[in-house]
Amino acid sequence: VAITSDKLIVVLVATRNPLNIGAAARAMSNFGCRHLRLVRPYEPSWVEAKSAVGADDVLHEAEVFDSVPDAVKDCGWVVGTSGAERTFSQSVRGLQDVAPELRARLQTSTSALLFGSEKTGLSNDDLSYCQAVLRIPTVQEHSSMNLGQAVAICLYELAREVMHPAVEPNRQVDSGVLARIERMLIETMLEIGYTDEKRHTHTEREVREYLRRHAMNPMEASMWMKFLRKVGWRLRNGG
Amino acid sequence: VAITSDKLIVVLVATRNPLNIGAAARAMSNFGCRHLRLVRPYEPSWVEAKSAVGADDVLHEAEVFDSVPDAVKDCGWVVGTSGAERTFSQSVRGLQDVAPELRARLQTSTSALLFGSEKTGLSNDDLSYCQAVLRIPTVQEHSSMNLGQAVAICLYELAREVMHPAVEPNRQVDSGVLARIERMLIETMLEIGYTDEKRHTHTEREVREYLRRHAMNPMEASMWMKFLRKVGWRLRNGG
Repeated sequence: VAITSDKLIVVLVATRNPLNIGAAARAMSNFGCRHLRLVRPYEPSWVEAKSAVGADDVLHEAEVFDSVPDAVKDCGWVVGTSGAERTFSQSVRGLQDVAPELRARLQTSTSALLFGSEKTGLSNDDLSYCQAVLRIPTVQEHSSMNLGQAVAICLYELAREVMHPAVEPNRQVDSGVLARIERMLIETMLEIGYTDEKRHTHTEREVREYLRRHAMNPMEASMWMKFLRKVGWRLRNGG
Repeated sequence: VAITSDKLIVVLVATRNPLNIGAAARAMSNFGCRHLRLVRPYEPSWVEAKSAVGADDVLHEAEVFDSVPDAVKDCGWVVGTSGAERTFSQSVRGLQDVAPELRARLQTSTSALLFGSEKTGLSNDDLSYCQAVLRIPTVQEHSSMNLGQAVAICLYELAREVMHPAVEPNRQVDSGVLARIERMLIETMLEIGYTDEKRHTHTEREVREYLRRHAMNPMEASMWMKFLRKVGWRLRNGG
């Protein structure tokens, strides 16, 4: 499931570096977001980004606009991003705080997420078209983020509640297999004198607990069993 | 407060692109993470990254190792990252799931977060030194992330619970100011015939509710008051 639905529009304003345009587009692909708009991109960068090897659909379908109001004309909610410690008339909110609201609005209406240029970020004029301003939490002395990384983090935050990686099931052997390994291990321990009939019960419990503490997958279980079989064979039949 | 404490070590394995080394280091600075280790970086890239304009302390203090086990020797918990859909003996967990555990372990012990090369990611051999493998949630058809963006997202996820951006307080004017604006607005409305004595009470309530629905900051309040004063003056004194 793509998080951001079809209703999220990423707007890059006055971006200079073609690599950053490409990086933003790649992050968008990663998180299933398709609509990229560029406001006054530095022309040679835009040409270079579009024609880069591996440039994907997001870049090919990107639209270029002359101004922020043009680019957000059809958007019900417009969110600006800012790393700088300026004072805006809008209050600045943390990304974590804005994301649920943006996600909710995307259910019903087209919304835009604006990113400013690498050097200056969004201007106060750009921000005056925004309903909300968000900031990614960073340490204060290093608050200026790479543009592509900022885009990636914002989309990740939008995605994190709803997308979960396709994880392999945690295949653990069942208790029957563990009991078999336990018995083989105890027999070996008795055989080599690690434990004896007196300490037997205590050792047995220690081994049982050890095997239960560490979830074992089938591959690990067969490694153990093969190892213990070979040890047993050598012990009985000599080196 | 830096999230990741002094105990998180970012390990880049066999990185090819100097820009990615720089981008990883920049993200580390953003999130207050200082210890970068490189395992067999492509030598020219490493030289270029280190000598780049604006290369920061993280890069200058980075250490180079010959192998993954050397690089994680002092680490209590080692987490690998993987975008690929391979089968590991470790179960692969979502970033959101691993982060709280990693954060908890960082309270007491040094831990490492490993990232593989741009082309192939971490090898199965590299991953065999890891206690856990995490994956960033992406759409399945575009699961390959940019290295710098992957580092940024992982550090953001570690930070997001504990760091909050230095937000400006949401300065709203108090009810006294709202009442003053309300009175001025109603007076103007009566004066221009927008409302009359009959509909007065109804209009008054509408205006009151409108002004309460939209939290107003002091700047906005003075804009309204100045506007209404000027309108009133012109109405009484003519154009």
